[in-house]
Amino acid sequence: MLQLYIGNKNYSSWSMRPWVAMRQLGIPFTEVMVRFDSFAPGSQFKQTMRALTPTHNVPLLVHDGLAVWDTLAIAEYLAEEFSHAGIWPKAFADRARARSICAEMHSGFGALRSHCPMNIEAALPEVGARIWAEQDAVRANVSRLIEMWGTLLQSHGGPMLFGSFSMADAFFAPVCMRLHTYALPLPPAIAGYVERVRALPAVQAWITDALAEQDFRDFEEPYRTQR
Amino acid sequence: MLQLYIGNKNYSSWSMRPWVAMRQLGIPFTEVMVRFDSFAPGSQFKQTMRALTPTHNVPLLVHDGLAVWDTLAIAEYLAEEFSHAGIWPKAFADRARARSICAEMHSGFGALRSHCPMNIEAALPEVGARIWAEQDAVRANVSRLIEMWGTLLQSHGGPMLFGSFSMADAFFAPVCMRLHTYALPLPPAIAGYVERVRALPAVQAWITDALAEQDFRDFEEPYRTQR
Repeated sequence: MLQLYIGNKNYSSWSMRPWVAMRQLGIPFTEVMVRFDSFAPGSQFKQTMRALTPTHNVPLLVHDGLAVWDTLAIAEYLAEEFSHAGIWPKAFADRARARSICAEMHSGFGALRSHCPMNIEAALPEVGARIWAEQDAVRANVSRLIEMWGTLLQSHGGPMLFGSFSMADAFFAPVCMRLHTYALPLPPAIAGYVERVRALPAVQAWITDALAEQDFRDFEEPYRTQR
Repeated sequence: MLQLYIGNKNYSSWSMRPWVAMRQLGIPFTEVMVRFDSFAPGSQFKQTMRALTPTHNVPLLVHDGLAVWDTLAIAEYLAEEFSHAGIWPKAFADRARARSICAEMHSGFGALRSHCPMNIEAALPEVGARIWAEQDAVRANVSRLIEMWGTLLQSHGGPMLFGSFSMADAFFAPVCMRLHTYALPLPPAIAGYVERVRALPAVQAWITDALAEQDFRDFEEPYRTQR
């Protein structure tokens, strides 16, 4: 049986990716929530994860005792183990393209990630407007997303990046959450994709769980002082 | 035919990974060197790469017109296209572990990467000693490498991380270059692995080319003022 270790659903963007992919593609798993108390070495979170993985972090997939860490490695593990689930697009060139944009997300988009941390329950349009005005690098990140998504949606005809849902959409689902929370300006075709991702059953389930947490973590909150 | 676009061999750690893997595993390719003149938008480097890839960066693999960018996506592309070349270890669990540590490298080890940029021709032991004394995060990165490599070398018996050479060793080859340049302190078993990686024919070929460049790029040189 697969166990997926995740952090708080309101905040943990990396946890969201494999969770949404597995749920949306019907891969059965047990969720193990390890609440973010803090990221200090002595925290309950770090103590729990240290016993399971050398990186002391979520997400972590455990399958019959085998620990697979890091979202991209989890994606490839699932693609091998559940080869008919549709983790990656079927066409060879699409698969290469999907992996390219996921790897690009994995090591990039630093400005968007640091200035606009995922916070599903929050509505921060004024913060977003200020960031948009002040942070060239955030605008450059969003500009790249618009180019990337626009090209793929046009060439595949939507509704998802490669036609039907794949790991690529799961990788950008937390980005869609951020674009919504901070109300960053998007052309209509791109805003439509963000709304379609938000409406996916697996994403809706994640959002519902995130809203139910009601667990304010100040170290994840650069902009709010309370819920 | 495969074309691999790379940057300066003395400096470009991400270019080194797929180049070393393909060369060591006998996957034929043509190298296209795009010299680092600068990373400004108007630079020759960025102009050249902008025409080829939306990330405007190296490494880039082009195969019959299909552009695959980002080192991890290139790794998976090669693993699919050259399934008998040995890009990933043969055993299922080893493959998952190899992907986990490569993905961990891809998004982590920030302190080591920023304080100790790859610079193959340089010998900077004094700089390394100062960094070692001052930078807790660099020591933590190296400590994680020692744990990771030590565990794998012990369980597989060496000489490489998963017995025989795989993409995992290529991913850490630039790290071995840094450990050597900055002369960071390592236990004997780990120092032995670094030397074995440096002695691989593909790594030796890369080093020879790097030394032949003699192309001092000040924006890649936080510690030297000349060659």
